[in-house]
Amino acid sequence: MSADTVLAGLDAIRPDLEAYYRDLHAHPELGHQERRTSARVAERLRAYGYDVSDGIGGTGVVGVLANGDGPCVLFRADMDALPIEERTGLPYASTAVGDDGGPVMHACGHDTHVTALLGAARLMAQAREAWKGTYVALFQPAEEPGDGARGMIDDGLTGRIPKPDVCLAQHVLPYPAGQVLTRPGPALSAADNYRITVYGRSAHGSAPDRGIDPVVMASMLVVRLQTIVSREVGPLTPAVLTVGSIHSGANPNNIPETAEIQLNVRTYEEDVRRRVRDAIVRITRAECAASGALRGPEIERFGAFPATVNDEDTTRRVAAAFSACFGDRAKVLDLQTASEDFSEIPKAFGVPFTYWGFGGTDPELYARAAERGTIATDVPGNHNAAFAPVIQPTLDTGVRAAVVSALAYLGNGAG
Amino acid sequence: MSADTVLAGLDAIRPDLEAYYRDLHAHPELGHQERRTSARVAERLRAYGYDVSDGIGGTGVVGVLANGDGPCVLFRADMDALPIEERTGLPYASTAVGDDGGPVMHACGHDTHVTALLGAARLMAQAREAWKGTYVALFQPAEEPGDGARGMIDDGLTGRIPKPDVCLAQHVLPYPAGQVLTRPGPALSAADNYRITVYGRSAHGSAPDRGIDPVVMASMLVVRLQTIVSREVGPLTPAVLTVGSIHSGANPNNIPETAEIQLNVRTYEEDVRRRVRDAIVRITRAECAASGALRGPEIERFGAFPATVNDEDTTRRVAAAFSACFGDRAKVLDLQTASEDFSEIPKAFGVPFTYWGFGGTDPELYARAAERGTIATDVPGNHNAAFAPVIQPTLDTGVRAAVVSALAYLGNGAG
Amino acid sequence: MSADTVLAGLDAIRPDLEAYYRDLHAHPELGHQERRTSARVAERLRAYGYDVSDGIGGTGVVGVLANGDGPCVLFRADMDALPIEERTGLPYASTAVGDDGGPVMHACGHDTHVTALLGAARLMAQAREAWKGTYVALFQPAEEPGDGARGMIDDGLTGRIPKPDVCLAQHVLPYPAGQVLTRPGPALSAADNYRITVYGRSAHGSAPDRGIDPVVMASMLVVRLQTIVSREVGPLTPAVLTVGSIHSGANPNNIPETAEIQLNVRTYEEDVRRRVRDAIVRITRAECAASGALRGPEIERFGAFPATVNDEDTTRRVAAAFSACFGDRAKVLDLQTASEDFSEIPKAFGVPFTYWGFGGTDPELYARAAERGTIATDVPGNHNAAFAPVIQPTLDTGVRAAVVSALAYLGNGAG
Amino acid sequence: MSADTVLAGLDAIRPDLEAYYRDLHAHPELGHQERRTSARVAERLRAYGYDVSDGIGGTGVVGVLANGDGPCVLFRADMDALPIEERTGLPYASTAVGDDGGPVMHACGHDTHVTALLGAARLMAQAREAWKGTYVALFQPAEEPGDGARGMIDDGLTGRIPKPDVCLAQHVLPYPAGQVLTRPGPALSAADNYRITVYGRSAHGSAPDRGIDPVVMASMLVVRLQTIVSREVGPLTPAVLTVGSIHSGANPNNIPETAEIQLNVRTYEEDVRRRVRDAIVRITRAECAASGALRGPEIERFGAFPATVNDEDTTRRVAAAFSACFGDRAKVLDLQTASEDFSEIPKAFGVPFTYWGFGGTDPELYARAAERGTIATDVPGNHNAAFAPVIQPTLDTGVRAAVVSALAYLGNGAG
Repeated sequence: MSADTVLAGLDAIRPDLEAYYRDLHAHPELGHQERRTSARVAERLRAYGYDVSDGIGGTGVVGVLANGDGPCVLFRADMDALPIEERTGLPYASTAVGDDGGPVMHACGHDTHVTALLGAARLMAQAREAWKGTYVALFQPAEEPGDGARGMIDDGLTGRIPKPDVCLAQHVLPYPAGQVLTRPGPALSAADNYRITVYGRSAHGSAPDRGIDPVVMASMLVVRLQTIVSREVGPLTPAVLTVGSIHSGANPNNIPETAEIQLNVRTYEEDVRRRVRDAIVRITRAECAASGALRGPEIERFGAFPATVNDEDTTRRVAAAFSACFGDRAKVLDLQTASEDFSEIPKAFGVPFTYWGFGGTDPELYARAAERGTIATDVPGNHNAAFAPVIQPTLDTGVRAAVVSALAYLGNGAG
Repeated sequence: MSADTVLAGLDAIRPDLEAYYRDLHAHPELGHQERRTSARVAERLRAYGYDVSDGIGGTGVVGVLANGDGPCVLFRADMDALPIEERTGLPYASTAVGDDGGPVMHACGHDTHVTALLGAARLMAQAREAWKGTYVALFQPAEEPGDGARGMIDDGLTGRIPKPDVCLAQHVLPYPAGQVLTRPGPALSAADNYRITVYGRSAHGSAPDRGIDPVVMASMLVVRLQTIVSREVGPLTPAVLTVGSIHSGANPNNIPETAEIQLNVRTYEEDVRRRVRDAIVRITRAECAASGALRGPEIERFGAFPATVNDEDTTRRVAAAFSACFGDRAKVLDLQTASEDFSEIPKAFGVPFTYWGFGGTDPELYARAAERGTIATDVPGNHNAAFAPVIQPTLDTGVRAAVVSALAYLGNGAG
Repeated sequence: MSADTVLAGLDAIRPDLEAYYRDLHAHPELGHQERRTSARVAERLRAYGYDVSDGIGGTGVVGVLANGDGPCVLFRADMDALPIEERTGLPYASTAVGDDGGPVMHACGHDTHVTALLGAARLMAQAREAWKGTYVALFQPAEEPGDGARGMIDDGLTGRIPKPDVCLAQHVLPYPAGQVLTRPGPALSAADNYRITVYGRSAHGSAPDRGIDPVVMASMLVVRLQTIVSREVGPLTPAVLTVGSIHSGANPNNIPETAEIQLNVRTYEEDVRRRVRDAIVRITRAECAASGALRGPEIERFGAFPATVNDEDTTRRVAAAFSACFGDRAKVLDLQTASEDFSEIPKAFGVPFTYWGFGGTDPELYARAAERGTIATDVPGNHNAAFAPVIQPTLDTGVRAAVVSALAYLGNGAG
Repeated sequence: MSADTVLAGLDAIRPDLEAYYRDLHAHPELGHQERRTSARVAERLRAYGYDVSDGIGGTGVVGVLANGDGPCVLFRADMDALPIEERTGLPYASTAVGDDGGPVMHACGHDTHVTALLGAARLMAQAREAWKGTYVALFQPAEEPGDGARGMIDDGLTGRIPKPDVCLAQHVLPYPAGQVLTRPGPALSAADNYRITVYGRSAHGSAPDRGIDPVVMASMLVVRLQTIVSREVGPLTPAVLTVGSIHSGANPNNIPETAEIQLNVRTYEEDVRRRVRDAIVRITRAECAASGALRGPEIERFGAFPATVNDEDTTRRVAAAFSACFGDRAKVLDLQTASEDFSEIPKAFGVPFTYWGFGGTDPELYARAAERGTIATDVPGNHNAAFAPVIQPTLDTGVRAAVVSALAYLGNGAG
């Protein structure tokens, strides 16, 4: 089968990949600052024989390998790191700083994504006889701030590379290394941040009748917003709305002029997302009206991520390929409360996609924690300063998953 | 002085007045049902020489005594009783029933008002040499339901009797018998009742997203209405808003269609009253909007009483006459949270007015309770089934107050 | 295979089953009143050769068919109907009345459950050569009020019949007739009703400082209870809390003494259920404390249903049997917000169970509604006065599902 | 009469007083920094023949003039200014800075208090033949921060000067210059500031079930606190509770650990003050309990002022003296929402007191604003950067009021 042929080259390139990974982990770069990462990726892709476009949306890089008639598969890896000070104790731990001088760490494992995709790209290039079609390896900047995929698209991505038939992506997660986990349908939540400013009228605290109290207005708003999840979203529909900050006033004795709240919403379906957004606007306006506000609220949405809703057929096809390759280490992924901007890319092309997880945790550590029921506390998750995927079988799994998923479309046999 | 001359006749008529009072107390009639009371009042007024109009606004009676050039003073007494079963233990306690067969009791002391005004009317008629002008004795139905004064006005009162220069009225209250108590400016509150129906959309309790929850809507409304008194009315401005009832739904498991609340508002100034009313409407509409109600609320005002705001000059003049007559038993009345429709009458004529209280409680009982700090519990107040004014000096005080207040305008000397 | 052998008898008994169904549909009986239904079931079971115990928990009936060594499978059907006036227009529509004279209707389809189980019981008895073990057909009263299973258990069920190795049950649902739908893990919600009375202190509406306002207390409670779903239950954990009724006070002008709310909670996991219950108690007590209530709240739980959490292995085994029998008409059941007391029975025995749905809607009607996106409005659901399962293939499917699920344990081949 | 004799000296000292006032206005000092003011006051008092104690409670100064047998009257003036940049445009406007380098202004008119008391002290000393007893002129620091009177008492005030029989004080207010305004009973509010910290548990915004949300907790607290004024304080009892600030969290996506609110309460009676305080504590604890907080709230009271409740007899006596001196420019003072620490001094001695206002606004400006109904906006009030009392008749009135009020006790005739 194709997969066996392509993956036969893995043993030979493994030492190089591991070295590459350690170097990348030690040199993380924040979103939009992935200059070193991007340059090295482009250099490698060119060396493997890919037709490379770089500088897309800033630091984005795409390598295209045309290999005869057949489907076109795009595989995306994200490259950016986080402003976190690494506390893994690893020999290759980061001491890097960002452009602002602050600490930077690959605390979300994007270094494993880059490495695995480079490995897959190399193997695909080495075994062109085993498949047919076009393989596109896309390295995206700035997933964490949420505007990296959008930036590549706005920079003309869809006109600069062949249109894929399907898009694929994967993320390392705190599951046992060696596992791959797929989920048809909703997989990751949409996330929307809102900043809401309500306007009262200041007055001395002893004369509330001369003012309009924004502290009461904002408090009633926070209380009322609870009813969106409790009443407006069905009990079987996951959604969460958190007001993460509220600020108004400076001293006990004066009614302030304004109040500001910031909130975050996570949903999994576009109509739920829209329903929640409409409810936020409706409730905010109504609470200002209830207070008799002379000026309407300002409602600003920022930092929005789409939901990641995997195509059913695509997911089934990839999951079948994983079962064939990984056996019972191919699992079903739980619905995640995290968010991603990957899906912007297939949506820009108008093509189906699937996004899956692969484990990065030492399986023994995981098993012990599972036994004790302490996974949440004992297994460091993404964005944690102690997040440290074990190199193997994590990288091998990432490379193999990248290869077999692509071959589910490009291969000449069953994945 | 005029007052001495007019009041000289009191001793002679006192036994008749007391007998009249006991009979009237034993035969109370509900608002709009004061047929016996009205007939006997008219009969007496005619016997005293008054020009009598009866049947005004149903059972209203007015006697006019023209006595030469001079001002015109209108004095009003209310005649109706309450649907309360009397528990005073008095020998002349009521066993009467209303048109609906239920118990009736003069639990608000209107019987003392009627008796005192008849006594004053008789004394004024007997001593015409002591004063000049026109004396109008008005007996009003239906003060308790709040539409008796309005009913007389709507029935043409202002065109049927001479226009007064001033209107006067008094009410027996749980202060020591013998006292008269005046208050310039706001004295009694305006009262407004509201019935508010909010509309949701029913759904099974397990599917709140298919409904619009009127229980939550009404609850938020009750909570929000608290801010009217806490934030929209100044701290030195008396106002109270009570939601006395809330009703929605029949079982735990269904989201109902509607919810209804009833509330009562008391204020003392017309602009405060209007401000509160506007706030109720504003908040109710906004809370329905916040819930996404498909149909706006119904807000019905019913049972409204105006505030009783005594004219400053009129009150000062009457208070001075009381000081001359009653010495240190002439007091300042505390602001009252009760309400009255008397002021509709002077407002219909566009003339000033004052309204005062006179004591009806056994002074010794009152003093003992005051010493113990138990007036609120030991002195039965108006509308209590045990409310039983002592006959004297209550009636004497009521007659004397009615005479000297009128003579402050009609007399030929200082009260 | 066993199933083919047993089901071979279906054609012959179908006319009798359909007649039985029409008669039963026309003679519905409310929970605890299933006297006619119970008697006829017992009569039939005896005729089929079952060892019958009746009168268990009132009208419960159990037939036991011992057929050599092997596992014991218990299959449960519920028998009761609802106090709803039927509006199906069917020739065999109910005109029955309950003991209280009110209308009764098989609006939840328990008549299909009874008929299907009788059919399966008869087929199992006719083809004893095709299986080995013990088959227990249990007909339960009073599922709707939620105390029928408990009543049989309290009446000694576990000591009166053989201990099963597995328990099975099924429910007709508004899916296309012909489908069977299974779901491992949580399938139906737990439901708990609460009646909460809070105690204030009555006072005149103008003197809130002398009272403790239960209208405000209950309203704040309703508002605060929203935070249980919005904040205390995770976004991926289904739960719903509906306050279905609130009642306090009789007129606008008096602060009442008490307020009562009723609420319904649905959850799918025992620890979530407990967490919500604890939160209700905690919040209710705290809101009463916030109001300064002199007397604590009364919190009464009533009408509780357990969650129905299907055993994973059992469900997988039954689902596999269904796939073999029904092909692609064997589906995955969506998580349901309804509740059931069936699981009380296997829990009383300490054995695993699974509960599934089978379709009752005309497939063409369903397909048209699905196309229009109007299933919710055009397909009458359970408890609707127009709920009318098509007789076939509904009954056939119910019988076949009952047979093949039992044979997954008792048969000598793969289902 | 005494007053005529003493006030006869006013014409002669007026130019000096006005010069003193302009100098003092140009050299304001913040509370506890009144070094220059204090030194000059002490110097003058000594020059007038007073027995002077200085440095009491920091910068406090007391002058005692014993003049034979008779009562002892203490008159208090406060000396401190405010951290406000003056915008009066006066030739003698302040350009002073405080110890912290910020602007300082006599924006509350304490300079008129100091000047008027020095004038009265001088006149009293010059006309000892017109009165008998002891006159105590007390100059207090730090009224604005609220701890100046307390500081003098804690520094031994009551043991360092003769015990007065009565204490007097006055304050310039935005009424027409020339008026004096007295009020028996409650006159100025008590003020209490509270800082409340509530404790939640932080969590990611997508996992509210792992946290305890302090934003919701604090918002519910703000909402619940509204019910203190709306429900727990009677409608005729003035009280105001303002939450002037609320702060929690830093970004939309994390549930913070804590929230802090600051609030201010104003009441006029000690039992109301205590009732409100108890309600704040009760409600705060209950709201934390409702949220399931693991740690109770911190409730800190700071910046407390007592209510100023004038002794009835003392006020009547002073008011009568004012009527004799000022005719119809002696008025009744409205209840004020401001607060004062003067009453700490008479309370420390256990003697009665009264505190009144005198006008500082140009009477013509005031009359025009009154006509237009724009007093609130056109007449700059205390603490406003444009607050500029007209020098006369303001100072004359202050001096005369100080003299005649003292002579109501010390004089040999009727005031």
